[in-house]
Amino acid sequence: MATEGQVITCKAAVAWEPNKPLVIEDVQVAPPQAGEVRVKILFTALCHTDAYTWSGKDPEGLFPCILGHEAAGIVESVGEGVTEVQPGDHVIPCYQAECRECKFCKSGKTNLCGKVRLATGVGVMLNDRKSRFSINGKPIYHFMGTSTFSQYTVVHDVSVAKVDPLAPLDKVCLLGCGVPTGLGAVWNTAKVEPGSIVAIFGLGTVGLAVAEGAKAAGASRIIGIDIDSKKFDTAKNFGATEFINPKDHEKPIQQVIVDLTDGGVDYSFECIGNVSVMRAALECCHKGWGTSVIVGVAASGQEISTRPFQLVTGRVWKGTAFGGFKSRSQVPWLVDKYMKKEIKVDEYITHNLTLADINKAFDLMHDGVCLRVLIPTKTAGVPLGLTSQPVCCCGRIGPVLGPSVRLNSDVC
Amino acid sequence: MATEGQVITCKAAVAWEPNKPLVIEDVQVAPPQAGEVRVKILFTALCHTDAYTWSGKDPEGLFPCILGHEAAGIVESVGEGVTEVQPGDHVIPCYQAECRECKFCKSGKTNLCGKVRLATGVGVMLNDRKSRFSINGKPIYHFMGTSTFSQYTVVHDVSVAKVDPLAPLDKVCLLGCGVPTGLGAVWNTAKVEPGSIVAIFGLGTVGLAVAEGAKAAGASRIIGIDIDSKKFDTAKNFGATEFINPKDHEKPIQQVIVDLTDGGVDYSFECIGNVSVMRAALECCHKGWGTSVIVGVAASGQEISTRPFQLVTGRVWKGTAFGGFKSRSQVPWLVDKYMKKEIKVDEYITHNLTLADINKAFDLMHDGVCLRVLIPTKTAGVPLGLTSQPVCCCGRIGPVLGPSVRLNSDVC
Repeated sequence: MATEGQVITCKAAVAWEPNKPLVIEDVQVAPPQAGEVRVKILFTALCHTDAYTWSGKDPEGLFPCILGHEAAGIVESVGEGVTEVQPGDHVIPCYQAECRECKFCKSGKTNLCGKVRLATGVGVMLNDRKSRFSINGKPIYHFMGTSTFSQYTVVHDVSVAKVDPLAPLDKVCLLGCGVPTGLGAVWNTAKVEPGSIVAIFGLGTVGLAVAEGAKAAGASRIIGIDIDSKKFDTAKNFGATEFINPKDHEKPIQQVIVDLTDGGVDYSFECIGNVSVMRAALECCHKGWGTSVIVGVAASGQEISTRPFQLVTGRVWKGTAFGGFKSRSQVPWLVDKYMKKEIKVDEYITHNLTLADINKAFDLMHDGVCLRVLIPTKTAGVPLGLTSQPVCCCGRIGPVLGPSVRLNSDVC
Repeated sequence: MATEGQVITCKAAVAWEPNKPLVIEDVQVAPPQAGEVRVKILFTALCHTDAYTWSGKDPEGLFPCILGHEAAGIVESVGEGVTEVQPGDHVIPCYQAECRECKFCKSGKTNLCGKVRLATGVGVMLNDRKSRFSINGKPIYHFMGTSTFSQYTVVHDVSVAKVDPLAPLDKVCLLGCGVPTGLGAVWNTAKVEPGSIVAIFGLGTVGLAVAEGAKAAGASRIIGIDIDSKKFDTAKNFGATEFINPKDHEKPIQQVIVDLTDGGVDYSFECIGNVSVMRAALECCHKGWGTSVIVGVAASGQEISTRPFQLVTGRVWKGTAFGGFKSRSQVPWLVDKYMKKEIKVDEYITHNLTLADINKAFDLMHDGVCLRVLIPTKTAGVPLGLTSQPVCCCGRIGPVLGPSVRLNSDVC
């Protein structure tokens, strides 16, 4: 690549301070060092974790930073020792790394790789504990090891999944966070069996993916719970079979569900990040075996609580991160499942915006009908800092596949 | 039996009021009704649950009642329709029933049979929702469906396990509660694998049984935690390999354990009933897979809490009741394991007292060196209300087996 080994200046949405609008800036992106990969990000989406850190409530949040962790792109160049991807590869950055060497990866019990966490947790790269982003020499922190609100980013090689080059990147970018989190919570963490009764608290993207996963797992009843009844029609399309709005009931929601299900559900999923709802999700589980999985991320300092009797009488309280999927190994598998039409992705994209309008995307996330906002990073009105375009910027190489419909004619 | 169909008057320790000494009374025990079994209790032990209800802190506690739930005896007579035991059978009353017909029993996922719970929870028998105990016409409540602080008791047929008649009842009576609870927490609930690191909070009978179970499961490190260092020598004999007294450390105990174990233990067990310790037990578990099992029973109204991040990062919070053992099916199996010297029982019996001295047993339980107090119910100085003794009162029929040593020469 013409840009290999050079600093690239490109556009990125920079969060200068908590809770202040992101600003599109010309950012310098340093070349990848040993074990690093520079990725040209083509499409990014927003997730609530971006909004959480942006809000200033995340005690680990560092500013200024470049947010974003649900995206897809193409490898521009790789650092020394990187063997599993090469320039031109289509990739999905993975905030959950997978090194295959650490205690966690080798345990066979978890997807929580420990290799780069100490660096990504403080917004830098492992090799020299510095950022690859800067503006006129001032470092800008990385975020979740991904920082996808940028036309180029640098990630650790253990944090990037190589995917089928025929897969539409404007769709499969969603397989970087929310959709796998929901599917995996069902398949990997809870291991829902056919015939199970499932309750899902919160019908956003993750909750809908839980519904889809539960349907695929053969659940007999999939109960969607949300305080916004507008979401119920959509949830039906993802597999939910019945709906409860807690506002329609005077009794605590856990009691409503226990009454409706002859003692409680087999599995429940909290997909909001609200500690009171986490309690309800546990307590609506059936005595003896009901398992509740915390999927949502609560605000810092908040605590869950319940009577220990709930556990002594057989309920199990668990949680999940990235749905328990091993990122580099299993994101490509999810992409293949999408290509075979075995999982939905397109249906989660409800809005599309330009990078210049990214602040509107944060507002849209609070709208009940918004699931995912797709943002192509090469957007009309925001000129690229580069002239060389080694591959088509839309991410398509080879034939365009079947049902994929372009959302934004500005993209290609 | 000469007593079949008749009311038996015998001695029992009656708890008239919370927190007041038990009183040895002449109690009338009605014949068993349909689905019930009248058992001549020969040996009973004390457990902390008896003390908890006696203290008045148990909101389900009803007075006057006959406490006791860890015992062994011989079937005196059976009610209509009882087929699985008959007079003369050696049995262990089981506070956790097993009907093999209810939703719980059929689930294959839990030992928490639901058949008689609604009756035993309110101190009566299922058939007519009345007690079989009375004193001069005044009903005395049952306790946990067992009420073993009596020379005779009536239990549901689903709450009695028939055991090997050669087993010494003055030993295997302990297989009615504490020892199976600890062993089963390891084998059934946590499913500890060889090589695991285990932490045990509280080194009483249940904690020691956890240590024994963990050793049998092949755990590589078994860390005993107790604020009474006197218990450590004993715990070594049950399999614990290292010891921590939280009083010796300034850091929170969970941090001490995480530091000692390169990130935390694989399995932890709370065997005290203290909600703060339950939190520590969860938080000392290894990120990614550590599983904490609540075994102790907390006081009513108390709640456990933690940051949800503990679960989202892969820890699992569970509980266990009677160690997950299916009582009627598996207590006989435990008795057989004892007979084959595969599990300890004798070693838990540290004291023996007469029924007349039962109040002293409650005091002894707070003594760090006391594990189990064995109480033969036919005790010198407390004449039986019956003259007929259809079988030897020591519970031995046939040869006395090997290593069993009589603790109380008054017994036979």
